[in-house]
Amino acid sequence: MTGRMDETHDPALTSWVESANGHPQFPIQNLPFGIFSIGDGERRAGVAIGDLILDLAVIAGHLPASAADAVSASTLNALFALPAADRRALRRSLSSILSDAGWRDRITPALHAADDCTLLLPATIGDYTDFYVGIHHAENVGRLFRPDNPLLPNYKWVPIGYHGRASSVRPSGEPVRRPLGQRKAPDADNPVFGPTQRLDYELELGVWVGQGNPLGQPIAIGEAADHIVGLGLLNDWSARDLQAWEYQPLGPFLAKNFHTTISPWVVTVEALAPFRIAQPERPDGDPDPLPYLNDPADRSEGAFAIEMEVLLSSERMRAEGLPPIRLSRGPASNMYWTVAQIVAHHASNGCNLRPGDLLGTGTISGAEAGERGSLLELSEGGKSPIALPSGEERRFLEDGDELTIAATASREGAVPIGFGPCTARILPALS
Amino acid sequence: MTGRMDETHDPALTSWVESANGHPQFPIQNLPFGIFSIGDGERRAGVAIGDLILDLAVIAGHLPASAADAVSASTLNALFALPAADRRALRRSLSSILSDAGWRDRITPALHAADDCTLLLPATIGDYTDFYVGIHHAENVGRLFRPDNPLLPNYKWVPIGYHGRASSVRPSGEPVRRPLGQRKAPDADNPVFGPTQRLDYELELGVWVGQGNPLGQPIAIGEAADHIVGLGLLNDWSARDLQAWEYQPLGPFLAKNFHTTISPWVVTVEALAPFRIAQPERPDGDPDPLPYLNDPADRSEGAFAIEMEVLLSSERMRAEGLPPIRLSRGPASNMYWTVAQIVAHHASNGCNLRPGDLLGTGTISGAEAGERGSLLELSEGGKSPIALPSGEERRFLEDGDELTIAATASREGAVPIGFGPCTARILPALS
Repeated sequence: MTGRMDETHDPALTSWVESANGHPQFPIQNLPFGIFSIGDGERRAGVAIGDLILDLAVIAGHLPASAADAVSASTLNALFALPAADRRALRRSLSSILSDAGWRDRITPALHAADDCTLLLPATIGDYTDFYVGIHHAENVGRLFRPDNPLLPNYKWVPIGYHGRASSVRPSGEPVRRPLGQRKAPDADNPVFGPTQRLDYELELGVWVGQGNPLGQPIAIGEAADHIVGLGLLNDWSARDLQAWEYQPLGPFLAKNFHTTISPWVVTVEALAPFRIAQPERPDGDPDPLPYLNDPADRSEGAFAIEMEVLLSSERMRAEGLPPIRLSRGPASNMYWTVAQIVAHHASNGCNLRPGDLLGTGTISGAEAGERGSLLELSEGGKSPIALPSGEERRFLEDGDELTIAATASREGAVPIGFGPCTARILPALS
Repeated sequence: MTGRMDETHDPALTSWVESANGHPQFPIQNLPFGIFSIGDGERRAGVAIGDLILDLAVIAGHLPASAADAVSASTLNALFALPAADRRALRRSLSSILSDAGWRDRITPALHAADDCTLLLPATIGDYTDFYVGIHHAENVGRLFRPDNPLLPNYKWVPIGYHGRASSVRPSGEPVRRPLGQRKAPDADNPVFGPTQRLDYELELGVWVGQGNPLGQPIAIGEAADHIVGLGLLNDWSARDLQAWEYQPLGPFLAKNFHTTISPWVVTVEALAPFRIAQPERPDGDPDPLPYLNDPADRSEGAFAIEMEVLLSSERMRAEGLPPIRLSRGPASNMYWTVAQIVAHHASNGCNLRPGDLLGTGTISGAEAGERGSLLELSEGGKSPIALPSGEERRFLEDGDELTIAATASREGAVPIGFGPCTARILPALS
């Protein structure tokens, strides 16, 4: 792991951008990439530094030539496609420019207050795939959908995944329209069509694909980490009543594809190098991964020391000036498969990944009650409502609710870094 | 229906491109759009006419101004995004130019022999969705996967679909690499990883989306047909052993996403106007579609008089000079849901469709033995091999096999039109 560390991770490093020093999300050790607009609405590549955003196209002449075109584009797809060495050179250059006060005068005109900017999707998403690596989530949900058979026999062999909808992935901040759809009550003869009554969130990590692979050419597990450019926070909005009625035999469809929220900053694997930790040991009796998914280096540093949390505020809570409540909190290491394993599995049949593809991990729940990553789990399928400080209660999400996923990577000896928010508010269904 | 017919459908219409007259696929009544390259490899929009391809960018100045930019692009996405009225004006213009011999000298330089051209994907596919509307297929396959429960209770209410992989959709002619993957024999303790032993095809129609809808705004059933720009032939290659092991609970994934073949010509809904027929009556006792899927006009002309067939040749058959054998043949009207219904359902929750999205109908099998649209069905799950004229037999596809889907739209009083081939050959798995 230390082989991936360089001077950009030095905990003593500070920036002449004052707000970066001690910033809980975007100190100089982070330097996440994103796409923003300001004023004219043109899409520009940027880097978050403290409370500011650095416009990369404006300073492209000061950056390594290998990255100059990529940082001047209106999406990050070309940047994601760069060889890892070029990405690292870009990071070192940005770190040097933002730490050396000699650059202040030349660079300051390229800095914007983040509050003045709109953050957009970082890349054109060719395909979006959602996995199911949270074993506690799989068990909790499996128990609700299939009480006798919560964890299916393939779960510990196959990193289960399915294709999601690329067109409806939206950056943090865009509201979510409550979807209409078919639902059938267990005791009803026929389904009805109308607004979902069981709107839910799912706490996930998003994985941005860097370099791709040609169709027909798998990615070896030992090389899979090199195909990942960074992580974000992802909310896989779900309509549980639609899902229960539609999902057999071909999986979730309209229950999920009405909206997916992603945090707009791409926290790079380079920034996350100090936070790599060993993948948790498989419980006794679990099978070893098959060879195409089994890599000692991935076992020893395939997980991340990231703490995630989910916050909720209702319209009434906001009207009463009450702060959001935390619904759950837990480590991102509650994943049965690593991000490298899901990449290697995805490409194991020759399926081609492309730069800018987005992979969701699936809901990350922990073993404890306070670590459940969806309302379906927290309310035990709607049976146990959650009390809000406004006197309301929630089984599922109501119109006006605002849901936020936040996360911090932290580890002793490293400066903690954040992901920025992944947040959205629920709009009522169309009548 | 007759409201949609105009002079471009006149059976008496002929072209000064001699090979178009009597051409089984591309008479002047068809005029399908596609993207081709020739020589320099540049992607150009074209129209098939007889044995030739008309380069649209070269003659853009002679076409309606509303379509001039769209036909000069390197994909058809902009053409698909045009209002239907503009597409129809373009069609009338092309029909007039190719039928009036006064244009011959000016247009001839823009014509290429199709044999000299390479046909490419017609559009950048934002999302690819596969449906399951072939009720006989659903019953046949359901019986193999779930003998006690072949057709699930949601089937006659919900046009079942799932998201497929956009990145691995390939035009006719590109070979298919046999995928590797996990499979588990019913009597084995553990799965193994290796080349699929049950490689299969699926006979489908592909539906190209024209104008899209904004996220959060459903498409009404009465307007759904206007969002479809045309049809193609689609082969949803499937690895049945991978599928059986992976598909629960989230549906097919690696069993399908290694390759999908689409015929490169987009046969427009305008060209298909004479072949619209009533949707077959639902059997007695089946529920009426819910209102959001129920439209009298769609019932009376939501299906198409298209006859589809599947042809197979093995490497040995070709070496021995034997022609391909027909595996199945049947009408495309064996669909429980119309293409308008799948579009309306897809967008019913607000999911946004975009121009160039591709929808597969799902395997179209008929009730008769000769109408089964996959080897899984034809060989009854591998139990009943199919004899080839070379003395070989097939349960599933072997390396070197070449599979072709072909189709013709025909109806009394109309000139039949075709789709061009949807064909590919199987390459051995990577060792």
